[in-house]
Amino acid sequence: MARVPEVSSRGKAMPASPIRKLHSLCVAAQNEGVHVFHLNIGQPDIESPVELLRGYREFSDSVLPYGPSAGLPAYLKKLIIYYERWGIPLSERDILVTTGGSEAIILTLMAVADPGDEIIIPEPFYTNYNGFAMMAGLTVKPLTTRLEDNFALPPLDQLEALVGPRTRAIVLCSPGNPTGAVFTREELDGVADIARRRGVFVIADEVYREFVYDGKKHVSILDLPGMDEHAVMVDSISKRYSACGARIGCIVSRNSGFMNSILRFGQARLCPPTVDQIAAAAAVDTPPEYFERVIEEYDCRRRLLHQRLLGMGVDCKLPGGAFYMVARLPVADADHFAAWLLTDHRHEGTTVMIAPANGFYATPGLGQSEARLAYVLNCGDIDRAMDSLAAGLEAYGSTMGAHGR
Amino acid sequence: MARVPEVSSRGKAMPASPIRKLHSLCVAAQNEGVHVFHLNIGQPDIESPVELLRGYREFSDSVLPYGPSAGLPAYLKKLIIYYERWGIPLSERDILVTTGGSEAIILTLMAVADPGDEIIIPEPFYTNYNGFAMMAGLTVKPLTTRLEDNFALPPLDQLEALVGPRTRAIVLCSPGNPTGAVFTREELDGVADIARRRGVFVIADEVYREFVYDGKKHVSILDLPGMDEHAVMVDSISKRYSACGARIGCIVSRNSGFMNSILRFGQARLCPPTVDQIAAAAAVDTPPEYFERVIEEYDCRRRLLHQRLLGMGVDCKLPGGAFYMVARLPVADADHFAAWLLTDHRHEGTTVMIAPANGFYATPGLGQSEARLAYVLNCGDIDRAMDSLAAGLEAYGSTMGAHGR
Repeated sequence: MARVPEVSSRGKAMPASPIRKLHSLCVAAQNEGVHVFHLNIGQPDIESPVELLRGYREFSDSVLPYGPSAGLPAYLKKLIIYYERWGIPLSERDILVTTGGSEAIILTLMAVADPGDEIIIPEPFYTNYNGFAMMAGLTVKPLTTRLEDNFALPPLDQLEALVGPRTRAIVLCSPGNPTGAVFTREELDGVADIARRRGVFVIADEVYREFVYDGKKHVSILDLPGMDEHAVMVDSISKRYSACGARIGCIVSRNSGFMNSILRFGQARLCPPTVDQIAAAAAVDTPPEYFERVIEEYDCRRRLLHQRLLGMGVDCKLPGGAFYMVARLPVADADHFAAWLLTDHRHEGTTVMIAPANGFYATPGLGQSEARLAYVLNCGDIDRAMDSLAAGLEAYGSTMGAHGR
Repeated sequence: MARVPEVSSRGKAMPASPIRKLHSLCVAAQNEGVHVFHLNIGQPDIESPVELLRGYREFSDSVLPYGPSAGLPAYLKKLIIYYERWGIPLSERDILVTTGGSEAIILTLMAVADPGDEIIIPEPFYTNYNGFAMMAGLTVKPLTTRLEDNFALPPLDQLEALVGPRTRAIVLCSPGNPTGAVFTREELDGVADIARRRGVFVIADEVYREFVYDGKKHVSILDLPGMDEHAVMVDSISKRYSACGARIGCIVSRNSGFMNSILRFGQARLCPPTVDQIAAAAAVDTPPEYFERVIEEYDCRRRLLHQRLLGMGVDCKLPGGAFYMVARLPVADADHFAAWLLTDHRHEGTTVMIAPANGFYATPGLGQSEARLAYVLNCGDIDRAMDSLAAGLEAYGSTMGAHGR
């Protein structure tokens, strides 16, 4: 008699993506002919730079070989030029190219922490950090930030109180997904001070570096003095060049022991994809005007989305960066509302897909009324999406009222 | 006073790749103008099919977006056609496309086992399984196979004796890296019987499916009856299409609970690279004549390498598949010899790079005199490489003799 094996505990506990879990409801709506406005996923509609797209045509060898585990030397050279523009001097040994920012975070977590160890992350945070922590066997200790403060870091003593004997790292994402919050140099200095005193790493996810508004400038963890042994920066070209499908990221640190370990993890998985690295190298030549246009466009969307949400009585603040906003909707259960939008709501043949925010919190019960909205549609579509959302909120309110919710 | 954080225990213990660890010595030799014959790495010199290379030029959209976490639907359809040719009927939900075979194995191990669990692997085995097990927090229990038996599986009671309460899976690689061994249907049936009775998964790495010689045919774990709940197959296009740099692999299983878990792991890392999947889909149209030529070429190399090694008194058997061979060299320490070849040995301006085999064993002390040789050079180069190796063995013998080793 056959005994059927079961998946592992982590395989059972692994969370479904709250960003992707409504996918089947979306497909069903689309099959009905409904136009779904996608505000749920950080997939920019902005055109990729021609430099990147042309880069994919540069490969002309007759064999497509493995590259070095740390990345193609030609791409590493280009990355050094890219970071130099941001005032961050690096050498090749400080960088390992990864398969997207996802692999950068997974490998970094494995290299700094063992199963049972803890990492501290301000919440709400990029929901896949939960999955990465589960893969690595780590516990997430959340540091709660609040919509009322526009998701700025709380007083530093709250952060330091979370640092325990098994804490190995503080993970930051600025400009932030899902909040759009941009941490100031003072906030980062405060975190760095705790990291140095308590002997923990700071892992900074800086994939939205380019997307900062209101004339402010991104501050990198690698900019801060005295942090060479503590700072790890993870990066990706997905958002920068609107190239999420390229799956090219990197890990950057001046801590040579850490980078030596990361290289051995990198050797196990052999190398990141070769042709995508060639395209990514070409994309470093994207002219500044490309980013000026893109940032102007996102800025316009950001203001429009913010004003339209305020206009329908939704609680939200103008975010300082990235292309997301966490809004508190006038509903008790944003999960239910997000599903209802796809299954029941139709406004002039359209509906809206949003990401319920509870999946971005580690503290149970937080974010039940909140949703992440990604402004990855042009202003005309955002306007139409907001018309649809406003109608949806009104209809949902009366429906739910009628059902006693 | 700053406290410097340390890397994790697994970050310290993570093994350097025995295949790649001699890289710096190789670069130094090349900088001296020495021609290094690479027998150390499974990077085929065979040209990639034009279908694949042209596939990279098919992408013509203006945005490079995320794909679905399970893979592009168009590629999944092509994979079903590919496996159908091998007599393996599948549906789309049985497949998740991965970033190379490496990611396929890592995600599979995480989905079947928790930290502290065990997996059984016949040794010598593909050395990176060690790294993947370490990432996942698993212990490898090796089942030793021997050169004398041409690395066939030992009697099944030896395998069953290794199955304990924490054993979650048996990992097989056939055709095998590093041994070239091809397991028979009888051997696989025996393993399957144990897996069913003991309730453990069988994870079969079948990336060398095409490369079987002497008129034999590869047997897939998915071919065996009664194994739908137990069998997981991991695959990659790296060797099939000589496309190691594409980083496209997949996980295949008819166990729906397992595939559901794998999809959630897959969602965390978002998706495999988009353009590489388009190229991989195009490559499924590679005509059978391509493989006939390639297999004829490898077969010729295999016989030549085997004869030349026997001719210089090296102990080895003719392998039945893949493009590797494990040979026992007349040296006490193949690690030292492999380094010496790069640093000290010059034969008509050439030397040879080999992979010491001790890194392919989990049992300490095994494989000290053995090396893996990959026949990824054309016959002329294999002949010249063997001239250089023969001269090296002779010189090393007298040098080491003189030094009392």
